[in-house]
Amino acid sequence: MTAIFGRLAEGGTRPDEGGETFQDLLAGGGARVERILSRGAASPPGLWYEQEWDEFVLLVAGAAVLGFEDGTERRMEAGDYAILPARCRHRVAWTDRETLWLAVHMPPG
Amino acid sequence: MTAIFGRLAEGGTRPDEGGETFQDLLAGGGARVERILSRGAASPPGLWYEQEWDEFVLLVAGAAVLGFEDGTERRMEAGDYAILPARCRHRVAWTDRETLWLAVHMPPG
Repeated sequence: MTAIFGRLAEGGTRPDEGGETFQDLLAGGGARVERILSRGAASPPGLWYEQEWDEFVLLVAGAAVLGFEDGTERRMEAGDYAILPARCRHRVAWTDRETLWLAVHMPPG
Repeated sequence: MTAIFGRLAEGGTRPDEGGETFQDLLAGGGARVERILSRGAASPPGLWYEQEWDEFVLLVAGAAVLGFEDGTERRMEAGDYAILPARCRHRVAWTDRETLWLAVHMPPG
Protein backbone atom coordinates (compact mmCIF):
# COMPACT_ATOMS: atom_id res chain seq x y z
CA MET A 1 0.00 0.00 0.00
CA THR A 2 3.04 2.26 -0.19
CA ALA A 3 3.45 4.57 -3.14
CA ILE A 4 6.26 3.91 -5.57
CA PHE A 5 8.04 6.77 -7.30
CA GLY A 6 10.16 6.93 -10.41
CA ARG A 7 11.39 9.12 -13.20
CA LEU A 8 10.19 8.28 -16.66
CA ALA A 9 13.51 9.27 -18.22
CA GLU A 10 15.32 6.71 -16.07
CA GLY A 11 14.84 3.13 -16.99
CA GLY A 12 15.85 0.44 -19.39
CA THR A 13 17.85 1.47 -22.42
CA ARG A 14 19.64 -0.52 -25.02
CA PRO A 15 22.26 1.96 -26.13
CA ASP A 16 23.92 -0.42 -28.57
CA GLU A 17 20.84 -0.95 -30.66
CA GLY A 18 18.45 1.19 -32.56
CA GLY A 19 14.84 0.43 -32.07
CA GLU A 20 12.67 0.58 -29.06
CA THR A 21 12.80 -0.47 -25.44
CA PHE A 22 9.54 -1.43 -23.73
CA GLN A 23 9.01 -1.54 -19.98
CA ASP A 24 5.79 -2.21 -18.09
CA LEU A 25 5.36 0.21 -15.22
CA LEU A 26 1.99 -1.02 -13.98
CA ALA A 27 -0.42 -3.71 -15.11
CA GLY A 28 -3.67 -5.12 -13.81
CA GLY A 29 -7.24 -5.92 -14.74
CA GLY A 30 -6.33 -6.10 -18.41
CA ALA A 31 -4.83 -2.60 -18.50
CA ARG A 32 -1.15 -1.82 -18.80
CA VAL A 33 0.97 1.32 -18.45
CA GLU A 34 4.14 1.08 -20.49
CA ARG A 35 7.24 3.20 -20.92
CA ILE A 36 8.68 3.18 -24.43
CA LEU A 37 12.06 4.59 -25.31
CA SER A 38 12.66 5.02 -29.04
CA ARG A 39 16.11 5.77 -30.27
CA GLY A 40 15.83 6.84 -33.85
CA ALA A 41 13.39 4.03 -34.39
CA ALA A 42 11.22 3.21 -37.36
CA SER A 43 9.00 0.20 -37.82
CA PRO A 44 10.29 -2.02 -40.61
CA PRO A 45 8.49 -1.28 -43.89
CA GLY A 46 5.25 -3.21 -44.04
CA LEU A 47 5.15 -3.86 -40.30
CA TRP A 48 2.00 -2.54 -38.68
CA TYR A 49 1.01 -2.41 -35.08
CA GLU A 50 -2.55 -3.56 -34.73
CA GLN A 51 -4.18 -4.60 -31.51
CA GLU A 52 -7.52 -5.64 -30.16
CA TRP A 53 -7.66 -2.88 -27.56
CA ASP A 54 -7.62 0.89 -27.45
CA GLU A 55 -4.28 2.53 -26.77
CA PHE A 56 -3.48 5.97 -25.41
CA VAL A 57 0.01 7.24 -26.09
CA LEU A 58 1.64 10.43 -24.80
CA LEU A 59 4.85 11.67 -26.32
CA VAL A 60 6.81 12.84 -23.27
CA ALA A 61 10.10 13.89 -24.84
CA GLY A 62 11.55 13.96 -28.33
CA ALA A 63 9.53 13.80 -31.52
CA ALA A 64 8.05 11.16 -33.77
CA VAL A 65 5.97 10.55 -36.86
CA LEU A 66 3.19 8.00 -36.76
CA GLY A 67 2.01 6.51 -40.03
CA PHE A 68 -1.38 5.04 -40.84
CA GLU A 69 -2.67 2.55 -43.34
CA ASP A 70 -4.38 5.22 -45.47
CA GLY A 71 -1.00 6.80 -46.08
CA THR A 72 -1.42 9.72 -43.71
CA GLU A 73 1.34 10.63 -41.31
CA ARG A 74 1.22 12.67 -38.15
CA ARG A 75 4.12 14.36 -36.42
CA MET A 76 4.05 14.36 -32.64
CA GLU A 77 6.09 16.43 -30.24
CA ALA A 78 6.43 16.52 -26.47
CA GLY A 79 3.01 16.95 -24.87
CA ASP A 80 1.09 15.53 -27.83
CA TYR A 81 -1.06 12.48 -27.33
CA ALA A 82 -2.82 10.03 -29.62
CA ILE A 83 -5.76 7.76 -29.02
CA LEU A 84 -5.38 4.70 -31.21
CA PRO A 85 -8.61 2.72 -31.32
CA ALA A 86 -8.56 -1.05 -31.45
CA ARG A 87 -7.63 -2.36 -34.89
CA CYS A 88 -6.30 1.02 -36.05
CA ARG A 89 -3.19 -0.08 -37.92
CA HIS A 90 -0.27 2.22 -37.27
CA ARG A 91 3.47 2.30 -37.47
CA VAL A 92 6.31 4.43 -36.23
CA ALA A 93 7.60 6.13 -39.37
CA TRP A 94 10.34 8.01 -37.57
CA THR A 95 11.50 9.08 -34.14
CA ASP A 96 14.05 11.49 -32.83
CA ARG A 97 17.17 9.98 -31.29
CA GLU A 98 15.76 10.03 -27.76
CA THR A 99 12.01 9.78 -27.79
CA LEU A 100 10.13 8.85 -24.67
CA TRP A 101 6.52 7.67 -24.69
CA LEU A 102 4.01 6.71 -22.09
CA ALA A 103 1.56 4.20 -23.51
CA VAL A 104 -1.63 3.03 -21.82
CA HIS A 105 -3.14 -0.18 -23.13
CA MET A 106 -6.79 -0.36 -22.22
CA PRO A 107 -8.49 -3.66 -21.35
CA PRO A 108 -9.61 -5.53 -24.48
CA GLY A 109 -13.28 -4.88 -25.19
CA MET B 1 -11.05 3.31 -36.04
CA THR B 2 -9.39 6.62 -36.81
CA ALA B 3 -6.75 7.94 -34.46
CA ILE B 4 -7.51 11.03 -32.43
CA PHE B 5 -4.77 13.52 -31.61
CA GLY B 6 -4.50 16.18 -28.97
CA ARG B 7 -2.14 18.26 -26.89
CA LEU B 8 -2.19 17.63 -23.19
CA ALA B 9 -1.58 21.30 -22.42
CA GLU B 10 -4.74 22.25 -24.30
CA GLY B 11 -7.98 21.44 -22.63
CA GLY B 12 -10.37 22.45 -19.95
CA THR B 13 -9.26 25.14 -17.56
CA ARG B 14 -11.05 27.10 -14.92
CA PRO B 15 -8.94 30.23 -14.82
CA ASP B 16 -11.17 31.96 -12.30
CA GLU B 17 -10.80 29.33 -9.65
CA GLY B 18 -7.97 27.69 -7.84
CA GLY B 19 -8.12 23.97 -7.53
CA GLU B 20 -8.10 21.29 -10.11
CA THR B 21 -9.72 20.55 -13.45
CA PHE B 22 -10.34 16.93 -14.38
CA GLN B 23 -10.96 15.65 -17.89
CA ASP B 24 -11.33 12.07 -19.07
CA LEU B 25 -9.37 11.46 -22.25
CA LEU B 26 -10.14 7.76 -22.66
CA ALA B 27 -12.13 5.25 -20.65
CA GLY B 28 -13.12 1.63 -21.11
CA GLY B 29 -13.10 -1.77 -19.47
CA GLY B 30 -12.86 -0.20 -16.05
CA ALA B 31 -9.70 1.79 -16.88
CA ARG B 32 -9.58 5.53 -17.32
CA VAL B 33 -6.98 8.00 -18.62
CA GLU B 34 -7.46 11.43 -17.12
CA ARG B 35 -5.90 14.84 -17.61
CA ILE B 36 -5.59 16.89 -14.44
CA LEU B 37 -4.70 20.57 -14.42
CA SER B 38 -3.80 21.92 -11.00
CA ARG B 39 -3.50 25.63 -10.50
CA GLY B 40 -1.82 26.22 -7.18
CA ALA B 41 -4.02 23.50 -5.74
CA ALA B 42 -3.92 21.85 -2.36
CA SER B 43 -6.36 19.32 -0.96
CA PRO B 44 -8.30 20.79 1.95
CA PRO B 45 -6.74 19.78 5.28
CA GLY B 46 -8.01 16.39 6.33
CA LEU B 47 -9.21 15.48 2.83
CA TRP B 48 -7.59 12.31 1.54
CA TYR B 49 -7.87 10.68 -1.83
CA GLU B 50 -8.41 6.99 -1.36
CA GLN B 51 -9.65 4.63 -4.00
CA GLU B 52 -10.27 0.97 -4.57
CA TRP B 53 -7.99 0.74 -7.59
CA ASP B 54 -4.36 1.33 -8.43
CA GLU B 55 -3.50 4.69 -9.96
CA PHE B 56 -0.53 5.72 -12.06
CA VAL B 57 0.18 9.42 -12.22
CA LEU B 58 2.77 11.23 -14.34
CA LEU B 59 3.63 14.83 -13.63
CA VAL B 60 3.91 16.30 -17.12
CA ALA B 61 4.59 19.97 -16.35
CA GLY B 62 4.96 22.05 -13.22
CA ALA B 63 5.70 20.68 -9.77
CA ALA B 64 3.77 19.29 -6.84
CA VAL B 65 4.07 17.77 -3.40
CA LEU B 66 2.09 14.66 -2.55
CA GLY B 67 1.38 13.94 1.10
CA PHE B 68 0.70 10.57 2.70
CA GLU B 69 -1.06 9.44 5.83
CA ASP B 70 2.16 8.60 7.64
CA GLY B 71 3.20 12.24 7.40
CA THR B 72 5.71 11.80 4.61
CA GLU B 73 5.70 14.14 1.65
CA ARG B 74 7.17 13.72 -1.78
CA ARG B 75 8.02 16.46 -4.25
CA MET B 76 7.42 15.66 -7.91
CA GLU B 77 8.67 17.49 -10.96
CA ALA B 78 8.07 17.10 -14.68
CA GLY B 79 8.85 13.55 -15.75
CA ASP B 80 8.31 12.04 -12.30
CA TYR B 81 5.67 9.41 -11.83
CA ALA B 82 3.99 7.77 -8.88
CA ILE B 83 2.21 4.46 -8.53
CA LEU B 84 -0.46 4.79 -5.89
CA PRO B 85 -1.78 1.39 -4.88
CA ALA B 86 -5.43 0.90 -4.04
CA ARG B 87 -6.31 2.28 -0.61
CA CYS B 88 -3.09 4.29 -0.35
CA ARG B 89 -4.42 7.50 1.17
CA HIS B 90 -2.82 10.55 -0.37
CA ARG B 91 -3.39 14.24 -0.79
CA VAL B 92 -2.03 17.06 -2.87
CA ALA B 93 -0.09 19.16 -0.37
CA TRP B 94 0.92 21.77 -2.93
CA THR B 95 1.19 22.37 -6.67
CA ASP B 96 2.85 24.95 -8.79
CA ARG B 97 0.58 27.46 -10.48
CA GLU B 98 0.28 25.44 -13.69
CA THR B 99 0.74 21.78 -13.02
CA LEU B 100 -0.34 19.20 -15.55
CA TRP B 101 -0.81 15.54 -14.70
CA LEU B 102 -1.70 12.44 -16.63
CA ALA B 103 -3.46 9.96 -14.37
CA VAL B 104 -4.29 6.38 -15.25
CA HIS B 105 -6.91 4.69 -13.12
CA MET B 106 -6.59 0.93 -13.37
CA PRO B 107 -9.60 -1.36 -13.30
CA PRO B 108 -10.71 -2.11 -9.74
CA GLY B 109 -9.30 -5.44 -8.56
